[in-house]
Amino acid sequence: MSLVHTVELRVRYAETDRMGVVYHANYLVWCEVGRTDFIRASGVSYREMEERGIGLAVSEASMRFHAPARYDDLIRVQTSIAEVRSRGVTFDYVIVRADDDARLVSARTSLVTIDPTGRMTAFPSDFRTMLEQARDAT
Amino acid sequence: MSLVHTVELRVRYAETDRMGVVYHANYLVWCEVGRTDFIRASGVSYREMEERGIGLAVSEASMRFHAPARYDDLIRVQTSIAEVRSRGVTFDYVIVRADDDARLVSARTSLVTIDPTGRMTAFPSDFRTMLEQARDAT
Amino acid sequence: MSLVHTVELRVRYAETDRMGVVYHANYLVWCEVGRTDFIRASGVSYREMEERGIGLAVSEASMRFHAPARYDDLIRVQTSIAEVRSRGVTFDYVIVRADDDARLVSARTSLVTIDPTGRMTAFPSDFRTMLEQARDAT
Amino acid sequence: MSLVHTVELRVRYAETDRMGVVYHANYLVWCEVGRTDFIRASGVSYREMEERGIGLAVSEASMRFHAPARYDDLIRVQTSIAEVRSRGVTFDYVIVRADDDARLVSARTSLVTIDPTGRMTAFPSDFRTMLEQARDAT
Repeated sequence: MSLVHTVELRVRYAETDRMGVVYHANYLVWCEVGRTDFIRASGVSYREMEERGIGLAVSEASMRFHAPARYDDLIRVQTSIAEVRSRGVTFDYVIVRADDDARLVSARTSLVTIDPTGRMTAFPSDFRTMLEQARDAT
Repeated sequence: MSLVHTVELRVRYAETDRMGVVYHANYLVWCEVGRTDFIRASGVSYREMEERGIGLAVSEASMRFHAPARYDDLIRVQTSIAEVRSRGVTFDYVIVRADDDARLVSARTSLVTIDPTGRMTAFPSDFRTMLEQARDAT
Repeated sequence: MSLVHTVELRVRYAETDRMGVVYHANYLVWCEVGRTDFIRASGVSYREMEERGIGLAVSEASMRFHAPARYDDLIRVQTSIAEVRSRGVTFDYVIVRADDDARLVSARTSLVTIDPTGRMTAFPSDFRTMLEQARDAT
Repeated sequence: MSLVHTVELRVRYAETDRMGVVYHANYLVWCEVGRTDFIRASGVSYREMEERGIGLAVSEASMRFHAPARYDDLIRVQTSIAEVRSRGVTFDYVIVRADDDARLVSARTSLVTIDPTGRMTAFPSDFRTMLEQARDAT
């Protein structure tokens, strides 16, 4: 059972398209917002990770769209950890509309750990421990 | 064997992020560019579809990231049809760098047919036939 | 003296570019966030405006960039009204970094009131009064 | 009289908003596409500039919106040089719809020359000469 971290955001006009709903690629941006906040809540910011020379590059992403978000909706992104590996981490996301808890999108992204030249590398042990503790929190 | 339709685009500065490469969500936008061009090449524009009251809403999307695209790269999006259903269609994409044909991203999106109120509906038969012919072209 | 309404946001990775800073066009999106929140704080949401058939289309925009915002910075958008017209409204924005109040961008956007067909129209008097009261608040 | 360089692009679904037209901030992205192509046509790519340690950061931007672009429109961005300075350059843009030459947006951006640390610096003389020749071409 992973910690589930929740962050709220409000849908921007810029994020809608002419169908009147949020353009589908933007949900991946919201996943990034959720992931960033999850990592920060675990004890270190992703910016600090990068300053120590560790980047996280998305290697796989998948999304299922259940219902559309609309302009000005208040949104909750619920992020949890599915798996921690020596060279990467997988996050799960559930994106819901805040006012009625309707599930809008479920998503998963796998990230690999890279050094500043873009090569895969192992997590420093403190980061890995931090993520494992978040994964095992209840 | 589906028709494979290729469209070229050049990476915009706006599409990069501070890792120096294209931000991952933007590849979904390029898939949309490929899909739009595929549909147009099949005989009707997606804009005309919408004018006849048929929209295509993305219901599932998945991407695998093999190598990053960089600013100013010339990119080829190769789009084909995986499946045509009465109420939807699934597209496959291979995104390559034009100058060395390196595979950057493979992706799949499933779309459902909706009416102007957002409800699922069946393809008009002429659209469905058009897509099936593209799917069966060699 | 207009009311100055402040909204906070955190810089998303998606908003940066390969120069390592926020891509300049994204500040206009933050102005929209500021404006939306200003209008909501004045007593009606922009979504409700649109539901009553009144849209606001940007007719002019200008920005001066003083210093760059960076990934994960906490940002404050300070929005005020410069002018209310029968068929439009002009907003001023100051975008600052929250932790040291450094001024990053100053901007102005003029908006015109349009009906659902895109034609210019006059503000309903209650909206106009609401905006004039915000403009005159101290 | 500056050289006027024209580049074409097609409006992406992602670039529209729920008003049914192109979201205003995206025109600045198209200006960047026009400017990049202008520079390339002058003899060096902006990517090569950056590889030589010279960046161009936008210091001011202004846009007037005359008519909206819509999904799938073919667009022409006409870019010219308004001014070359020792530490910067100003570009003018006219964005038109290709099928009827309707003027949609006029814009201007001023850019300053920066080194890799973000400090203002002078143009290398070959870049400056190149831009001056483009400015004086007829």
